[in-house]
Amino acid sequence: MNAPTATSHLLPEIHRRDTPPALLDALKAQFGARCSTALSVREQHGRDESPLDAPPPAAVVFAHSTADVAAAVKLAAAHGVPVIPFGVGSSLEGHLLAVQGGISIDVSGMNQLLALHADDLTVTVQPGMTRKQLNEAIKDSGLFFPIDPGADASIGGMAATRASGTNAVRYGTMRENVLALEVVTASGEVIRTGTRAKKSSAGYDLTRLMVGSEGTLGVITEVTLKLYPLPEAVMAATCAFPSIEAAVRTTIQTIQMGVPIARCELLDAHAVRAVNRCDHLGLREGAMLLMEFHGSPSSVAEQVQTVQAIAAEQGGQDFEWAATPEARSKLWAARHRAFLSGLQMKPGCRAITTDTCVPISRLADCLLETIDEAEASGLAYFIVGHVGDGNFHVAYLIDPASSVERELAESLNHTLVQRALRLGGTCTGEHGIGLHKMGFLIEEAGLGAVAMMRAVKHALDPHNTMNPGKIFSW
Amino acid sequence: MNAPTATSHLLPEIHRRDTPPALLDALKAQFGARCSTALSVREQHGRDESPLDAPPPAAVVFAHSTADVAAAVKLAAAHGVPVIPFGVGSSLEGHLLAVQGGISIDVSGMNQLLALHADDLTVTVQPGMTRKQLNEAIKDSGLFFPIDPGADASIGGMAATRASGTNAVRYGTMRENVLALEVVTASGEVIRTGTRAKKSSAGYDLTRLMVGSEGTLGVITEVTLKLYPLPEAVMAATCAFPSIEAAVRTTIQTIQMGVPIARCELLDAHAVRAVNRCDHLGLREGAMLLMEFHGSPSSVAEQVQTVQAIAAEQGGQDFEWAATPEARSKLWAARHRAFLSGLQMKPGCRAITTDTCVPISRLADCLLETIDEAEASGLAYFIVGHVGDGNFHVAYLIDPASSVERELAESLNHTLVQRALRLGGTCTGEHGIGLHKMGFLIEEAGLGAVAMMRAVKHALDPHNTMNPGKIFSW
Repeated sequence: MNAPTATSHLLPEIHRRDTPPALLDALKAQFGARCSTALSVREQHGRDESPLDAPPPAAVVFAHSTADVAAAVKLAAAHGVPVIPFGVGSSLEGHLLAVQGGISIDVSGMNQLLALHADDLTVTVQPGMTRKQLNEAIKDSGLFFPIDPGADASIGGMAATRASGTNAVRYGTMRENVLALEVVTASGEVIRTGTRAKKSSAGYDLTRLMVGSEGTLGVITEVTLKLYPLPEAVMAATCAFPSIEAAVRTTIQTIQMGVPIARCELLDAHAVRAVNRCDHLGLREGAMLLMEFHGSPSSVAEQVQTVQAIAAEQGGQDFEWAATPEARSKLWAARHRAFLSGLQMKPGCRAITTDTCVPISRLADCLLETIDEAEASGLAYFIVGHVGDGNFHVAYLIDPASSVERELAESLNHTLVQRALRLGGTCTGEHGIGLHKMGFLIEEAGLGAVAMMRAVKHALDPHNTMNPGKIFSW
Repeated sequence: MNAPTATSHLLPEIHRRDTPPALLDALKAQFGARCSTALSVREQHGRDESPLDAPPPAAVVFAHSTADVAAAVKLAAAHGVPVIPFGVGSSLEGHLLAVQGGISIDVSGMNQLLALHADDLTVTVQPGMTRKQLNEAIKDSGLFFPIDPGADASIGGMAATRASGTNAVRYGTMRENVLALEVVTASGEVIRTGTRAKKSSAGYDLTRLMVGSEGTLGVITEVTLKLYPLPEAVMAATCAFPSIEAAVRTTIQTIQMGVPIARCELLDAHAVRAVNRCDHLGLREGAMLLMEFHGSPSSVAEQVQTVQAIAAEQGGQDFEWAATPEARSKLWAARHRAFLSGLQMKPGCRAITTDTCVPISRLADCLLETIDEAEASGLAYFIVGHVGDGNFHVAYLIDPASSVERELAESLNHTLVQRALRLGGTCTGEHGIGLHKMGFLIEEAGLGAVAMMRAVKHALDPHNTMNPGKIFSW
C-alpha cells in the first residue's frame, strides 16, 4: 500500500538539504549500531500511512533517552540538517516524510512508563510508548488513558498531532489531556513545560504550543498525561438507522441534550459492509452508530434510556448490545480496522482521507451534501466518523496510477473543506496539517494567523531544522 | 484599599517611556472625548486589586469596536508607546499597572453578545462583557457559562489570565473553555484563532497561546466560549469538619473517586468567621467545605451519597443544604465576598494573596505545612480554596505601612511556592504572573522555558509595546 509511485504527489517545491558525511560519521561515533544508513531502514522511516512519497532520510538514529535525542539534535543542528521525530509511523498526513532531507530520530525504544501517580490521576511516559502499551502498563491501577485515535499510535506522536479519536466526545483530545512535557529544542536544549497541577496560569502555555506542532518546534521526550478511573459500568451497542441523516440527527440531539456519551461513531453502509467482510460481524448493512456509555450503573442506564428514545424517534432499530467485554473489544477492534477493511474493497487502492470537523448543529448539512457529491463523483468511498464531535472522515479509494482519480478525490476534499469552513468548522479535526493540508490551513486561519505561526517557528527554530516543510511554508 | 503607598512595592526596575504629545493629539483626533487624560480616569485605570502601585497611564482610550482597538494600537505602535488592555480592573497581580508608561485601552464598552449558537453550545462575545452579563444575556437559552473566578471579571480579562474559580473542578478553566479568539496584534492587525469546531489539529494552537498571555502578545477583541446545558438538578451544601485536614482528606477522596462534583470550596475558620460577620450566615466557625452538585436528579443523589459517606468517615457534620435557589445564591455570594469580608477583619490592611496549586494527593501536605507556618508567623490571615483542583489562597493581612509585615508575608508566600513546586505544582493556579510572580515563574518553569516564552514575545511583539514588563523581563 505504501510502495512509492513514479512521481511524488502534491509535495510543495522542496529544497533537499545535503547531509554531510561528517555528520554521518559523528552520528555513528555517538550512536554506533543505533545509527543506521541502510536503505530499508531509511525507507521504513521515510513514509507513513499517507498517500504521499518522498526520498527517505539520510540516516535513522534509534534514541534510547532524552540525552540521545539532545545529542542527535545538536549534531544535526551543527550541520544545519533537519531532524524528524518518528514514533510508530501512523501519521496520515506525511508528517514523517523527509521532504528536505535530514535525519529520522526513532523514539520507539523510549517506551517506558516513568512515573504513575495513581492518586493524582496522572502518568508520565516516554514518547515512544503506544497508547495500548500505556493502558497495559497501568491496568492494575484502576485507571485508564482514553484517547484512542484507532491506530496504536505513540503517545509522542499523538501529542505532536493533537490526536483524539473515539473517546474524545467525552474525554477530550490530547489538547485537554497533556499536562506537561519535556522537549528537546532546536538548539538541543532540554526544557520542561507545565507541571502535574491540574491547572495553572504560569506564563505562556508552552505545553499547548507544543501539542499539535507536529515536530516543527522541538522533539517531545516526555509526556505527562491525565488518567481517568475505569468506569464502574460500560455498555456498548450498535444501532442501525434507515438513513445517514437519521443517525446524524440522533447524534446531534444526544450531544445537545448533554448526554455524557463516551463514544458515538458513525459508519456508513459501505463501511459496515467492509467491516462485515473482514470481521464477520454480521451487522445490518446500513448507516449505523456504534456507541459506548460509561458511568455508574444508574447513570449508564439513564444515558441509554435517553439515547434509545432519541434513536427511536429517528427510526433507529433496537440497540444491539455487545454484552461481554470480549464482544465489546471485538466491536471496537472492527471499528479500528474499518480503515484497512475499507481499503480492501478496492484492491491496490490508496485512500485520500478527509478530516473536517464542524459545530454539531451543522453536522447533518455538512455530511449530507458531502455524500451527494461523493455519490455523484463515481469514486469508491466509505465514511466513518467521530460524529459526537462533529468530525468525520470520507476515504476516497483511488487507483494510485490514475491522476484523474487522485485529482478528483483531492477536489472533493477541497470542496468539503470549504464547506466545513463556511459552517464554522476546521479542515482537520485530528490528523494535523502535515504536507497535505498546508493550503487548507491558509484558507482556514487566514494569512495573518499563519504569519503569526511562522513568526513563532522562526523564533524557536531559526535555522528551520525541526521537521521542516510541514504545516506552512518557511 | 488601593490608595498608593509612599513607595512602589516589589516592582522590577522600570523604564517608563514617554508618551509624546503628538500621540496624544492623534488619539484625541481619532477618539475625541473617548480619549481621556484626566488624572482621575488615568488613576482608576492604572491600578487593580493587587497591593502594587505605579504611576498611571498617560491616557485612557475607551474602545467601542475592534476597529477602535486596532486604531489605538497602531497609533501607539507608531510612537513605540505601550498599550495595556483594561476590562474591569479585577486583576490581583498588577496586570493593569503602566509600569513602562503608555496608554490604557478600556474595552468595558465592548460588552455585547455577538452570536449565541445555542444548538452548538457556543457563544461569541466582546471582551468587555462580564461573566454575570453573559449569564444574564443567555439565561433564556437553557445554557450557562460556568467559569467563575469570584469577581465579576470581564471575559477578555479572564481569557488573558487563564482564569478559573469555583466551577473549574468540573468544567475546566478558560484554557478548556475558549474555542476561538479575535486578536489585535502588536502591529494593529486583526487575526482570528480557532473556530467553533469542538476540536481541531489545524496548526499551532494560537488560541491557547493567547489565553494566559496577559495582554503581552495582543489585545483580545472577541472571545468564543463553550456553554453548558443548565443542570437538571443542582444541590448545594456546607459541611463543617473537626479540622482542616479532615476537610481536605474528604476533598482528596472525592476527587480520586471521580465524583463529578461541580464546586468544592474550602474555608478555614478565619474565613468562615469573616463571612459570618459580613453576611450573617450563622455558619459553624470551623473548617468548612462548600459543595455543589450538578446533574440529573439521580446522578446528584448518587454524588451526594458518596461524598456524605466520605465526609462522615472524616468526622464531618451533617450536610446543611441550601434548599432554594435563593439560599444557594446567598451562599455563593458570601463565598465570593469572602476576600473582601476577610479584609475587614483588619481595618486598613492590604492582602498578600498566594495562589499555589498542587496535584490533589499532595494537597494535605501542602496546606497543613502552610498553616503551621502562618500560625507561627503571627500575621493575621485566612484561607479559601478551590480545593477540588488542589488550589488554595492564603490571604496574609498586612499593614501597608509596615515593611516588616509585608516582607514577612512575601517570604511566607515564597516558601509556599517552593513547597508547591517541590510537590509537583505551580506558583499560580489562576491569578497569573503579572508583576508579582515573575521570580516564581523562573523557579517553576526554569530559565530555558522562560527563554522560550521570551523568544515568542520578541517574535510577536518586537518593540515590546504590548503590556510590557509583565510575566518576565524583556
